[in-house]
Amino acid sequence: MSVTTERKEAAYYIDLAARLAEQFAKDAVERDKAGGTPTAQLNLLRESGLLSAFIPVQYGGGGQPWSVILRIVRELSRADASIGHLYGYHCLPLTRLYMVGSEEQKRYYFTESVRNQWFWGNSGNVMDRRLLGKRDGNRYIVNGVKGFSSGSPGSDYLSVLWWDEETLEPIGGFIPTNRKGVVVCEDWDGMGQRQTGSGTVRYEHVIVDEHEILHSTNEKETGFTYIIALLSFNILTNVFIGSARGAITEAAKYTLAHSRPWIASGVEKAADDPSIHRQYGELWIQVEGAEALADLALDKFDRIWEKQEATTPEERGEASILFQSANVLAGNVALEVTSRMFEVMGARSATAAQGFDRFWRNVRTHTLHNPAEYKLRQVGKWVLTGEYPTPGYYS
Amino acid sequence: MSVTTERKEAAYYIDLAARLAEQFAKDAVERDKAGGTPTAQLNLLRESGLLSAFIPVQYGGGGQPWSVILRIVRELSRADASIGHLYGYHCLPLTRLYMVGSEEQKRYYFTESVRNQWFWGNSGNVMDRRLLGKRDGNRYIVNGVKGFSSGSPGSDYLSVLWWDEETLEPIGGFIPTNRKGVVVCEDWDGMGQRQTGSGTVRYEHVIVDEHEILHSTNEKETGFTYIIALLSFNILTNVFIGSARGAITEAAKYTLAHSRPWIASGVEKAADDPSIHRQYGELWIQVEGAEALADLALDKFDRIWEKQEATTPEERGEASILFQSANVLAGNVALEVTSRMFEVMGARSATAAQGFDRFWRNVRTHTLHNPAEYKLRQVGKWVLTGEYPTPGYYS
Amino acid sequence: MSVTTERKEAAYYIDLAARLAEQFAKDAVERDKAGGTPTAQLNLLRESGLLSAFIPVQYGGGGQPWSVILRIVRELSRADASIGHLYGYHCLPLTRLYMVGSEEQKRYYFTESVRNQWFWGNSGNVMDRRLLGKRDGNRYIVNGVKGFSSGSPGSDYLSVLWWDEETLEPIGGFIPTNRKGVVVCEDWDGMGQRQTGSGTVRYEHVIVDEHEILHSTNEKETGFTYIIALLSFNILTNVFIGSARGAITEAAKYTLAHSRPWIASGVEKAADDPSIHRQYGELWIQVEGAEALADLALDKFDRIWEKQEATTPEERGEASILFQSANVLAGNVALEVTSRMFEVMGARSATAAQGFDRFWRNVRTHTLHNPAEYKLRQVGKWVLTGEYPTPGYYS
Amino acid sequence: MSVTTERKEAAYYIDLAARLAEQFAKDAVERDKAGGTPTAQLNLLRESGLLSAFIPVQYGGGGQPWSVILRIVRELSRADASIGHLYGYHCLPLTRLYMVGSEEQKRYYFTESVRNQWFWGNSGNVMDRRLLGKRDGNRYIVNGVKGFSSGSPGSDYLSVLWWDEETLEPIGGFIPTNRKGVVVCEDWDGMGQRQTGSGTVRYEHVIVDEHEILHSTNEKETGFTYIIALLSFNILTNVFIGSARGAITEAAKYTLAHSRPWIASGVEKAADDPSIHRQYGELWIQVEGAEALADLALDKFDRIWEKQEATTPEERGEASILFQSANVLAGNVALEVTSRMFEVMGARSATAAQGFDRFWRNVRTHTLHNPAEYKLRQVGKWVLTGEYPTPGYYS
Repeated sequence: MSVTTERKEAAYYIDLAARLAEQFAKDAVERDKAGGTPTAQLNLLRESGLLSAFIPVQYGGGGQPWSVILRIVRELSRADASIGHLYGYHCLPLTRLYMVGSEEQKRYYFTESVRNQWFWGNSGNVMDRRLLGKRDGNRYIVNGVKGFSSGSPGSDYLSVLWWDEETLEPIGGFIPTNRKGVVVCEDWDGMGQRQTGSGTVRYEHVIVDEHEILHSTNEKETGFTYIIALLSFNILTNVFIGSARGAITEAAKYTLAHSRPWIASGVEKAADDPSIHRQYGELWIQVEGAEALADLALDKFDRIWEKQEATTPEERGEASILFQSANVLAGNVALEVTSRMFEVMGARSATAAQGFDRFWRNVRTHTLHNPAEYKLRQVGKWVLTGEYPTPGYYS
Repeated sequence: MSVTTERKEAAYYIDLAARLAEQFAKDAVERDKAGGTPTAQLNLLRESGLLSAFIPVQYGGGGQPWSVILRIVRELSRADASIGHLYGYHCLPLTRLYMVGSEEQKRYYFTESVRNQWFWGNSGNVMDRRLLGKRDGNRYIVNGVKGFSSGSPGSDYLSVLWWDEETLEPIGGFIPTNRKGVVVCEDWDGMGQRQTGSGTVRYEHVIVDEHEILHSTNEKETGFTYIIALLSFNILTNVFIGSARGAITEAAKYTLAHSRPWIASGVEKAADDPSIHRQYGELWIQVEGAEALADLALDKFDRIWEKQEATTPEERGEASILFQSANVLAGNVALEVTSRMFEVMGARSATAAQGFDRFWRNVRTHTLHNPAEYKLRQVGKWVLTGEYPTPGYYS
Repeated sequence: MSVTTERKEAAYYIDLAARLAEQFAKDAVERDKAGGTPTAQLNLLRESGLLSAFIPVQYGGGGQPWSVILRIVRELSRADASIGHLYGYHCLPLTRLYMVGSEEQKRYYFTESVRNQWFWGNSGNVMDRRLLGKRDGNRYIVNGVKGFSSGSPGSDYLSVLWWDEETLEPIGGFIPTNRKGVVVCEDWDGMGQRQTGSGTVRYEHVIVDEHEILHSTNEKETGFTYIIALLSFNILTNVFIGSARGAITEAAKYTLAHSRPWIASGVEKAADDPSIHRQYGELWIQVEGAEALADLALDKFDRIWEKQEATTPEERGEASILFQSANVLAGNVALEVTSRMFEVMGARSATAAQGFDRFWRNVRTHTLHNPAEYKLRQVGKWVLTGEYPTPGYYS
Repeated sequence: MSVTTERKEAAYYIDLAARLAEQFAKDAVERDKAGGTPTAQLNLLRESGLLSAFIPVQYGGGGQPWSVILRIVRELSRADASIGHLYGYHCLPLTRLYMVGSEEQKRYYFTESVRNQWFWGNSGNVMDRRLLGKRDGNRYIVNGVKGFSSGSPGSDYLSVLWWDEETLEPIGGFIPTNRKGVVVCEDWDGMGQRQTGSGTVRYEHVIVDEHEILHSTNEKETGFTYIIALLSFNILTNVFIGSARGAITEAAKYTLAHSRPWIASGVEKAADDPSIHRQYGELWIQVEGAEALADLALDKFDRIWEKQEATTPEERGEASILFQSANVLAGNVALEVTSRMFEVMGARSATAAQGFDRFWRNVRTHTLHNPAEYKLRQVGKWVLTGEYPTPGYYS
């Protein structure tokens, strides 16, 4: 294992992400059509070292704050929102480990994750209660299925959540994806976010050993509990921002290279048409606003993360309002930009081969998780009454 | 040939279209994925008699006014916007024949079209000047290519437009699609309207005989010249309306059958959630407005059609303003409805298998032809100054 | 009394309204600033005969269907939405009389209303239960206040609604506005619709004689019960449509006469700026759609009105959905048009003296009665489940 | 004169502005109705010391960067957008002095401005060329009129711009408002921003002495030329943001204190209605995005200001794009929020006495200066081509 001897700068990682994104862009259209698992891309991520950017420095990782991780998500999503998504959710089990893992667990999983550049999948959807575990001494035997298991195909390790058959208590654990009895179904068939592998994992008598079980040591709920909910808002926000940015960039390239001026435009090139300028302006200013808000959310998250369990309920509440606001705004803007981008490119841009519709399909698919309606209610209730959302998995 | 002895009612045809639409709906998702030519569906159209609904009664056709034809377009588009499109454009060559064909040509083409239930393709895009014809006695030898030739694949007859090599005059003609030298490329690859076959047709020394050439006998421009432009606006308008209607119908079915109530909704079924009701209301009222305007356009078109060459420039101008208004409004509404329909269905509706994204892809693709920007300018200029658009292919 | 010997055509009344509207337009700005009662305008209405357009022919009235009455509302609202509103609500007591009055009452009130060209005010807001009546033999003695009494100032007669002190039953009656004890407070202070006089009326021991009391003779609820609710939707719809139309007309006049081209526009007159054309187009097509839907609602209302008590619950439900849809769409469109109209006129149009803001203030004020949110829910619930709204005062 | 011996913190000034805003809020509604000059408020500004916040420390001023000045504008605009506007434009002549004044002029005007707490008006609209100056030795005699002279009524000093009769060169100068021949017409009659005094100033043989004339010493155009244009964008942006914030704050107070729940809402208080929560959320997230972008613009402006003439064309271009983006976004958002605020307050909020419509009237009036259309074109052209706007008064 080669421990990184000096901590790299944020810029190093963001730049690395940007370069990888350029790679991923090359076949993003084909991969969108194919769906399935972006195996080659996951390998490039493994080779790049980006997968351990979040892991604390003392375990050999990059020690980057979440603001950097989320900027990486944004950067990757410009080219491929599936990979941006996978990267963001890869960091969630590592976050959970940081929060509730024992010192031994941290040492083992962080160190090995860096050494082997493990890619982590999530099989922990809290709304799917079909996965049960039976205590067997100090270990569990897990049976059932779990849906929306993003990143499971192609992963090295899985974060799993099941319910104790008897106590009905939720229990989490980490297992290698090739553990006996684990069947990754590869049945994800989203109309967008097609390579996120968000399908089902089946568990047939899967043994989870004691040292693989995460025992939450938190005795009482703090502002930091359910921090994962706040992270999820931010991951999606940055997938949306990256998607909208990518859409504008791709559209501009196309308009410059291929768009024909409309017959009545009076200009020689589409790129000289003032009405096309105006439309680019309309798209741009919305993304600028959404990104500025998303950036405030990144900073706020870092401050929460630094305080960990010392986060007060007020700080938590304020953060939740900000993150939900940024999430809904980014989603709305990304939806509009990815639908209207065709208007500045023209009729010939709407081919399956060029695949520009993937931007809208990605955003449309992803904005449906956790409806905007209910996020807006939480925000508006606070605006009106000052009451923060009750902390939970969706607030 | 079985001449229809009594003219059928409009309701007969619209009902027939609705029943065919039900058929077409069954595999619309698969056919959207496959692209290509809806051969079986074209055959069903042939068998149904719907293809001669427009043809004058004296030639054995249904003699339906354009308002009925366009309602058929709308009906078919609820299930499949490609087929709605194909049907509308199938009637364009017949319209052209009616307007400028000689009595002999009318007798032949109309009668044979009824007898054989020909399906007509359009290879007449006026903006593509790559198709040239060389005079050879009374006939032409045509060489070159023509893009955006909707309906050519699977067609029995083609309406073709080429330019005389020497005079550079545009010349139109009708030829059987299987004429020697005609190569229908089947290279259409739209991200939407995937079975409209709007690709390229190649012509290699194709002979067009004298009796197949349309000689416009109109000496001067009237309010009726460029009537095809006005028809095109209306065909698209009704494809949009049908698409929006179809989207709401499909969404409602899904919400009732499959949508899960959101965890914080406090209701047992998604269909009881007042915020979902509100959203359906928001979508519905927009479609209602757009359809009401589209209906006014249908009536207006019938009145223009009845007057034929007696149409005054004012009547023509007024019609153009109405048709462009209805077209842009319907396009805008259909875009919003087909994108927002997912919000009332929820996250699980966004799968490739269910293919609900085809509604948005169809509308998005089709709304790009003839940019809304320039239609709005023509409308607004008239609102402000009372000046009608100069008649032309896009006004 | 001069009984009109022949029934006038709808066009006669609509034309009359248009000519009066021209009159009313002349000082609409000043009257908007002044608020209060449009006494001179009410007198012009009295003189014109328009106030008896709705009254049945056998009583000497115009016998016009509601579709014509509502077109008059629309016409008047182009110039002055307050007067459009007053006119529409003037016809409500006459409608109520038609529906539940005894033959004697009809003869008296209709005939006298025609003879004296009475203008009717409404003091019958069903949500304000502060007005109580004490039975005294066959008459009532009424005490209390009633808010939102549109049209009371300047009226000749009032339609009043109170609650029986003992039975708590709602009772309606007609009294001359100058009846002893009636105090019209003239305290309406809307930010828009400023001359609708929608303030408070105080009742101090007001005697309502037996023949002035309306005894509903309907034994059971039919599709026709609560028809007043459906009328209210339509009155507001047409105030909105008229306001939006008036706004565009005024804006266009201003752009042509006064607007300066922007320095970077490259045109000599603002009226030649293609981006101003586009914006007019955007406003226009929305109003066209909303008006087309409003027109369908007019026709539907006439058909309901013709069937009276024979109206089925289904017909009533369908009508309610249509009227609420048209109402919300018209309100939304009018809000947008009256706010955006300034963008096509430019900075110098935004003066208090010119008073163009009255269009937005009128629409904004009027769209708040009966929130769009709840109308949309009723519409959407029906779209989704086919369930009609329960008939009532707001459905 | 009491020179401030230690520079106060930004927070001191922003807090001071917030406290003054509370004062100004008390009669903002009445003053909006009255129009005219906010004399008492200008005096409070004079007494507070806020008027010299921008003046460099060495001349006794607060030495605050523009980011602080603009936050003061925002703070004041929450209560009263006219005063926010006046404050921002008060700082423009001081900026101009800083940029092109001689050392003597700076010493005199800055020092006296601090000592006397002068309030500065602007009579320098560059598009109004009706003001001419005749050279008379070293002084000028100025004759004519100047429109859009914001802040002239009630001002102590005026920044004036005229054209040399012979050379047609524009010349600027500073004169006391009570200079002989200066007639402040107080004829501003905006439908919003009613106390900005943006009317006409007439000049009748007004003498401007040599030391009062500003001689630009800049030999060549740099990225810093036309910096005033960039400031203007930002002043308006922050008036919009403040207005939108103020609107939400006022609306929330009203909803909590006065709004009645809708009859079909099923809640006891309007403040508990989930659909009202949602609507507050919709308004809030938009303002959050616009404000986040406005904040980026503040920081960027400070960096430009620090570099002064060393600002490169690229930095200037980038700043212009950002400022125009922030300006249009803030304007759009403020328009929507100030119109929709009524929907969360309900029908009873729309009274003239409560005057909530002033928010919309202010924003609507102010957003018309320099049309969004042309700003968007500049932004979009850059997005597409990378070409920066040509520096000028509106770019």
